[in-house]
Amino acid sequence: MSNTIDRLAGELAGVTLLREAGDLTRLSRDFYWFSPVLKALLDDKRADLVAVPASQAEVARIVGACATAGVPLTPRGLGSGNYGQAMPLEGGVVLDLTRLNNVLWVKPGAVRAEAGARLSEIDVQARKSGWEQRMLPSTFRGSTVGGFYCGGGVGIGSNNYGMLKDPGNILGVKALSMEPQPRMVEFRGRDAVDLHHAYGVNGVVLEVELALAPALPWVEFLVSFGSFNDAVSFAQMLGESDGIAKKGVSAHQWPLPRSYRPLKDVVRPGESVVMTLVADYNEAAFAEMVKAAGGAITYRNDPRAEGAKRLTLQEFMWNHATLHAIREAEAAGAAPGMEGGITYLQLGYPAGRNLELVRRIHEIFGEEVVQHVEFIRVKGAVTCSGLPIVRWKGESRLREVMRILEEEGVYIADPHTWVVEDGGKKSINPRHVDLKIAMDPAGLLNPGKLRAWDEREATQKKSVFWDS
Amino acid sequence: MSNTIDRLAGELAGVTLLREAGDLTRLSRDFYWFSPVLKALLDDKRADLVAVPASQAEVARIVGACATAGVPLTPRGLGSGNYGQAMPLEGGVVLDLTRLNNVLWVKPGAVRAEAGARLSEIDVQARKSGWEQRMLPSTFRGSTVGGFYCGGGVGIGSNNYGMLKDPGNILGVKALSMEPQPRMVEFRGRDAVDLHHAYGVNGVVLEVELALAPALPWVEFLVSFGSFNDAVSFAQMLGESDGIAKKGVSAHQWPLPRSYRPLKDVVRPGESVVMTLVADYNEAAFAEMVKAAGGAITYRNDPRAEGAKRLTLQEFMWNHATLHAIREAEAAGAAPGMEGGITYLQLGYPAGRNLELVRRIHEIFGEEVVQHVEFIRVKGAVTCSGLPIVRWKGESRLREVMRILEEEGVYIADPHTWVVEDGGKKSINPRHVDLKIAMDPAGLLNPGKLRAWDEREATQKKSVFWDS
Repeated sequence: MSNTIDRLAGELAGVTLLREAGDLTRLSRDFYWFSPVLKALLDDKRADLVAVPASQAEVARIVGACATAGVPLTPRGLGSGNYGQAMPLEGGVVLDLTRLNNVLWVKPGAVRAEAGARLSEIDVQARKSGWEQRMLPSTFRGSTVGGFYCGGGVGIGSNNYGMLKDPGNILGVKALSMEPQPRMVEFRGRDAVDLHHAYGVNGVVLEVELALAPALPWVEFLVSFGSFNDAVSFAQMLGESDGIAKKGVSAHQWPLPRSYRPLKDVVRPGESVVMTLVADYNEAAFAEMVKAAGGAITYRNDPRAEGAKRLTLQEFMWNHATLHAIREAEAAGAAPGMEGGITYLQLGYPAGRNLELVRRIHEIFGEEVVQHVEFIRVKGAVTCSGLPIVRWKGESRLREVMRILEEEGVYIADPHTWVVEDGGKKSINPRHVDLKIAMDPAGLLNPGKLRAWDEREATQKKSVFWDS
Repeated sequence: MSNTIDRLAGELAGVTLLREAGDLTRLSRDFYWFSPVLKALLDDKRADLVAVPASQAEVARIVGACATAGVPLTPRGLGSGNYGQAMPLEGGVVLDLTRLNNVLWVKPGAVRAEAGARLSEIDVQARKSGWEQRMLPSTFRGSTVGGFYCGGGVGIGSNNYGMLKDPGNILGVKALSMEPQPRMVEFRGRDAVDLHHAYGVNGVVLEVELALAPALPWVEFLVSFGSFNDAVSFAQMLGESDGIAKKGVSAHQWPLPRSYRPLKDVVRPGESVVMTLVADYNEAAFAEMVKAAGGAITYRNDPRAEGAKRLTLQEFMWNHATLHAIREAEAAGAAPGMEGGITYLQLGYPAGRNLELVRRIHEIFGEEVVQHVEFIRVKGAVTCSGLPIVRWKGESRLREVMRILEEEGVYIADPHTWVVEDGGKKSINPRHVDLKIAMDPAGLLNPGKLRAWDEREATQKKSVFWDS
């Protein structure tokens, strides 16, 4: 490989290339270490070269050179995803797209940006004309739109707009094929969803076009409840209150809120919390609902007011909650994978049964599973997605916990695998294979992530062997 | 009564008063004649005097004078409601509030207007700063916000914001008590919902404050389907598509669309239709969904485009559809209540069972009931409300149809009664009686509409008799 990489580097003169061991390691990693399972398996995965293109033309040069040389290429944004989704399992080149960060245009209801544009910067640009992104991951400050498109599925705002893949959220995507002469392909509408959440295996995503939401005057609230059941019931009721404009509805079971150090003065010992953003003109209705539900607003921040706090509760939602919990455990001496440490899961609670399942999970697991749920719309119905903290007792107990949850009817998007189909997608989509044949015929893009592709290759190889 | 009215008229010198028979009849009526049942019962109801105040001060004078004289007072807006809700069952004074039409202010997310302000004018004012009303009746061109607040419940936009009574939609209301010295009372939040949909029996509503929605660039579509089941299934799917921004989702069974004369060139014989407004940036996703569902877009109008049609599909939704159907039947010689004529119902299809019930109703009634459904959110769930056209076969058959529908699990908001509790509300709310005691102690406001009040009075009178 080393000779090949040297030759590649020579061909790519003028492009920023990194070969220092520290850079190679740093830029080959994401938040895979959230999972003790993945940590053990992926710790040694590392690119041979990192390329940091400054333009789409440079990307095309890199892609063409790698395709010609048969070198695997793994595109990445900030690397704030999980599951090793942006980690180069077979080495080769990591393509750091963070300099491709132009917000190309904002129109009423839509934005188009280069893959490396930060979500926070897109929001800044969109807000200038009264719009904002429909959903954001809790990592929005630094993470890129290309990364969210390729690795995200839902986010803060999914209580209004559902999943990113739902029709109307993704408008278009431009990608480069992985070929010696790369082709630039624009996918629109339904076709643009085929490249989504595929970890970049189906094309090098250069531009993403997304629908926007009207930017509302959000005020942030933390509401404290005596019991997690009360918190979750309130969150569900809020989610179902069509007249209250809100963004992000998140419920956290005690002792999880104890991990949120910046919030230590507003979290009450022993109490569970709901976090949400409510449009200021609906604050009165929200406060009435809190009171009727027996909650207490212990934190209110209007980011537009004078003297407002810079802190945002959005950085305690979704997997940022997990991050805080892991940091807390680490501070107590229990790193992920250690006895006494913690890990997490990603759950889907079916609509209509979600409150019952929240209670049931607590009955079954007690303090082994501390629940954190995010309310979203799934095909129009309000339900919750879960990111519970699970006490680490080894992989076999983790698998058993997952089995029990599935038996209870909970859907699991396994965060302890790097395989596209074993995580969020769950099904092998023949369209993905066809698309990959067209866009990456040699299977060089982020190899090892698409089971449908690897099984196809295995099958082909076998049949070639059998035929011969 | 005539002497009392003469005296009242004298006391109200300077206020515009109408006493011509034609005016008294015209301004004592609403769309009660949609119901053959109500037509027969209410045709002779007429005010003795109509007062048309030009200011809130004049309203206070009229209210004080009527309360002192013990004369019933029935406030009204345009009279575009149904059920005789604004008709003076006991004569007295009709208070025409249409000159009290100031839009007091528009702020981000909220508007406050006098009761007589037209909904269309409020929308014009709100749009200047990028907002629009959350829901509108199909009569929005002329009808007033006070009338919608006092007599409406849902509307075009309820697919996003639910029912008008849902927390966060109504922000406040100012009403005058019916007393010799009228008090001006401001109700906020939950309390402001107590006067809603009570036909003005609990106070003379002078100002209404409502939450707004961001104004989106709506494009209007009519989609044609071979069968009503296909149309309804598509409409449900569209309603559940959280990523497609839309306002108003309406499905009309053939032959109802035949009545829509202005649409005759875009309606296909024998086909059922879906009407909706979609944000322009989601048009592509919408068109993909139409195609996948086997529909055909036969009409598209972007009201902001050059050469756009002035016609709006919003005037074929909700009870405007009923109006078109009645007009069509009348043109064929069958006025409401005549053999061969038609009438209508107002149905609530429970979420989760609504598609099944649409099919079931067709199985049971065939062409006797032609369905027209409007998709709304009810506590977060997408379902439909129905305004079916029912072939008129006399009141007893109508009651039987209603009984069968209720047995099937359909909720009925009976449009053939003027009683608050027998129509949409269904339950006697003790808060309403307490409120009426405070706001209208002598029971003079729009008498005969609130069962809870009349039964309380009957009980009181009886017990006085028994005690004596």
